[in-house]
Amino acid sequence: MNGHQRVWDDEGSAARLLALSDGVFAIAMTLLALDITLPAELDSDGFKRALRDVMPNLWAYALSFLVIAAFWRGHHQMFRYVREVDGTVIRLGLLSLGLVALMPFPTTLLAEYGDLPQSVAVYSGAVAAMGATQLALTVVLWKRPWLGSATLPDPVARNDVADLAWTVLIFAVAVPLAFVSPTGAKLWWAVLIPVKAVTGKRGKRLRAAAQRVGA
Amino acid sequence: MNGHQRVWDDEGSAARLLALSDGVFAIAMTLLALDITLPAELDSDGFKRALRDVMPNLWAYALSFLVIAAFWRGHHQMFRYVREVDGTVIRLGLLSLGLVALMPFPTTLLAEYGDLPQSVAVYSGAVAAMGATQLALTVVLWKRPWLGSATLPDPVARNDVADLAWTVLIFAVAVPLAFVSPTGAKLWWAVLIPVKAVTGKRGKRLRAAAQRVGA
Amino acid sequence: MNGHQRVWDDEGSAARLLALSDGVFAIAMTLLALDITLPAELDSDGFKRALRDVMPNLWAYALSFLVIAAFWRGHHQMFRYVREVDGTVIRLGLLSLGLVALMPFPTTLLAEYGDLPQSVAVYSGAVAAMGATQLALTVVLWKRPWLGSATLPDPVARNDVADLAWTVLIFAVAVPLAFVSPTGAKLWWAVLIPVKAVTGKRGKRLRAAAQRVGA
Amino acid sequence: MNGHQRVWDDEGSAARLLALSDGVFAIAMTLLALDITLPAELDSDGFKRALRDVMPNLWAYALSFLVIAAFWRGHHQMFRYVREVDGTVIRLGLLSLGLVALMPFPTTLLAEYGDLPQSVAVYSGAVAAMGATQLALTVVLWKRPWLGSATLPDPVARNDVADLAWTVLIFAVAVPLAFVSPTGAKLWWAVLIPVKAVTGKRGKRLRAAAQRVGA
Repeated sequence: MNGHQRVWDDEGSAARLLALSDGVFAIAMTLLALDITLPAELDSDGFKRALRDVMPNLWAYALSFLVIAAFWRGHHQMFRYVREVDGTVIRLGLLSLGLVALMPFPTTLLAEYGDLPQSVAVYSGAVAAMGATQLALTVVLWKRPWLGSATLPDPVARNDVADLAWTVLIFAVAVPLAFVSPTGAKLWWAVLIPVKAVTGKRGKRLRAAAQRVGA
Repeated sequence: MNGHQRVWDDEGSAARLLALSDGVFAIAMTLLALDITLPAELDSDGFKRALRDVMPNLWAYALSFLVIAAFWRGHHQMFRYVREVDGTVIRLGLLSLGLVALMPFPTTLLAEYGDLPQSVAVYSGAVAAMGATQLALTVVLWKRPWLGSATLPDPVARNDVADLAWTVLIFAVAVPLAFVSPTGAKLWWAVLIPVKAVTGKRGKRLRAAAQRVGA
Repeated sequence: MNGHQRVWDDEGSAARLLALSDGVFAIAMTLLALDITLPAELDSDGFKRALRDVMPNLWAYALSFLVIAAFWRGHHQMFRYVREVDGTVIRLGLLSLGLVALMPFPTTLLAEYGDLPQSVAVYSGAVAAMGATQLALTVVLWKRPWLGSATLPDPVARNDVADLAWTVLIFAVAVPLAFVSPTGAKLWWAVLIPVKAVTGKRGKRLRAAAQRVGA
Repeated sequence: MNGHQRVWDDEGSAARLLALSDGVFAIAMTLLALDITLPAELDSDGFKRALRDVMPNLWAYALSFLVIAAFWRGHHQMFRYVREVDGTVIRLGLLSLGLVALMPFPTTLLAEYGDLPQSVAVYSGAVAAMGATQLALTVVLWKRPWLGSATLPDPVARNDVADLAWTVLIFAVAVPLAFVSPTGAKLWWAVLIPVKAVTGKRGKRLRAAAQRVGA
């Protein structure tokens, strides 16, 4: 029982929270692309110009899809052994879905007004907030092993927490940075790439070790 | 059998009704956010103004997300032990989904015309109607224990009914109140907060007691 | 084996076709409501007029929601005992989803141009086409009992076929009728109400009888 | 074990990746139809003209629905025996969903500007890219039999690979072809029909043989 005291607040199987989550992730992913559109009835030149103008939307879509997909993958790993949910998990889970559902808005901001500080700040803030709720969820699930069918090994959990804490930190720092330089803040996001590479590789090694022991 | 007479009207497992419901809840939650958008090609000043103008939409989104999430959580608890559905449950379930799917409309009304009595009345009426169908569903599921894998203890069911009855009552009263004072009706909604705190705490205690007995 | 010859064309479990179907039904149901919207920044009088103008959209939403919900319920009953699907079932199932996904278009036509013959004809044709694919699916599933975990009793299947055949017939007749009188065609739809009442009651009786035997 | 070396990179059950995939497929299918719409408040003549003008959108919807439905069916067959997923499968699966979610854009291009080379090239490129990710996914799943509950027979896998390779090849060739002749490129797509007929028939025969042996 990992030394934690069980609270009797079980609200049943995790299946429906996961179904709702997969639904919101799937819809947010697909709605991101709705913004990639061309006005009707242009002439040939206007069409070519509009096709060029749609490129930033395509980039913003790719970026936001990557962000949401990464959060979904984290969500998938986090809930891997979870069988039941309680009130706290449901409340945090719903809060995080509310932020995922919001992502099309900062994505459009970034696509249409990507050179303005406010857009970059709003986008960074949205990702930091999503990361913070997933971080809280990870800690809650780790500290309540009675909700799961198996105990998440502490080194794996600690690595997941580090991964999300870095995500939150980097995007939170990008919020004020955006007002100094929007382009600088966007370049700063790239700091996450080497961080993710390290935590990702370590997580893979730790999970494999845990599974070979468990098998 | 709780003294109720079984009707042979079983239409099979609850799984697909729940899948459809989670789908509609997920989509309604995500579509709420579609309204949070900025016109393209504004200059820097127009952008800042539009960003300020979008704030009521963000508040309306947060409120409606909270409402739909609360109804989803109630739906999740209500169907926790339900294994089969009959014609009445399917019909009531679909009616309640029809009202959930409608929520983006009153949400937009509230965001764009929140100071007009009609908007507040329509919003209140929509929430009261959603509450009423969930109330009917709760009673039907409680009175048909043969649909479930376990019997919902009467005190838990009675508390759930009280919780939903208060929701319906408060939002139904807000409909005429909105025509007296739209702001007054919106403040009146807040009466639900202490009510929910009481029924929520009582529900948690009753559920925990029932589970400790059952375990 | 009901006298039918088994074709070895099994493509695996029905679970994913049902998940896709519930997804499309849920999204089509929710998108129907997207049309119920008001332009922003109206004055008080314009707002009241716009609220009145939105009423036909609300009616069209209610009607189409009812139609899609009825088809979903039929789909749910049809696939109740189905465990596996083959190429024919997948192809018919996808075709029927393509028609369900299309429903927002005839619904908007009906809401905006409900007094024009073309709108009523397109709406009637869409419902008739949906009914026809569900009819084909019902017959195919009935004639391939090896796909299911239980055999659908012939009287139940025959009643389901009759129910769908009446739906197709009534809406198909409404297509040419719409060009004589759009209002007449809409009134003609109501002929389905007593038909559905009879087949619905008979279906309930036949299913209950089959279950009491099976239990 | 088919001679392949197992990598310990398991990320748990395939169920949630499939739920997310079915969600994205369902939403992309349904959003395709959002483009089929008429402006409000036209007079009778304008309405008839608009109804005629909407026909290309209807054709583009039918084509894209067919394409997405075919990819879904391939996805369903590919994951039929898969029980677990690893990092590579998740990453490829998400990439392919990102392309499925994008389909409404090339579909609108084709509907509105179907006679311009860029539209046909973008559409062909999108389908080729979707095919390429599904091809990669098929190969990865085939070469990692430890992820599944049963081994896909090599002749079946080889036929699936051939089917997808032809799809990629035909649509990739259509990209440069579109700049020579948009209409020619669209006719060239039809080359896929006899190819699909052959691989489809062969696949059906091979699967049936494998099942009769397994049964």
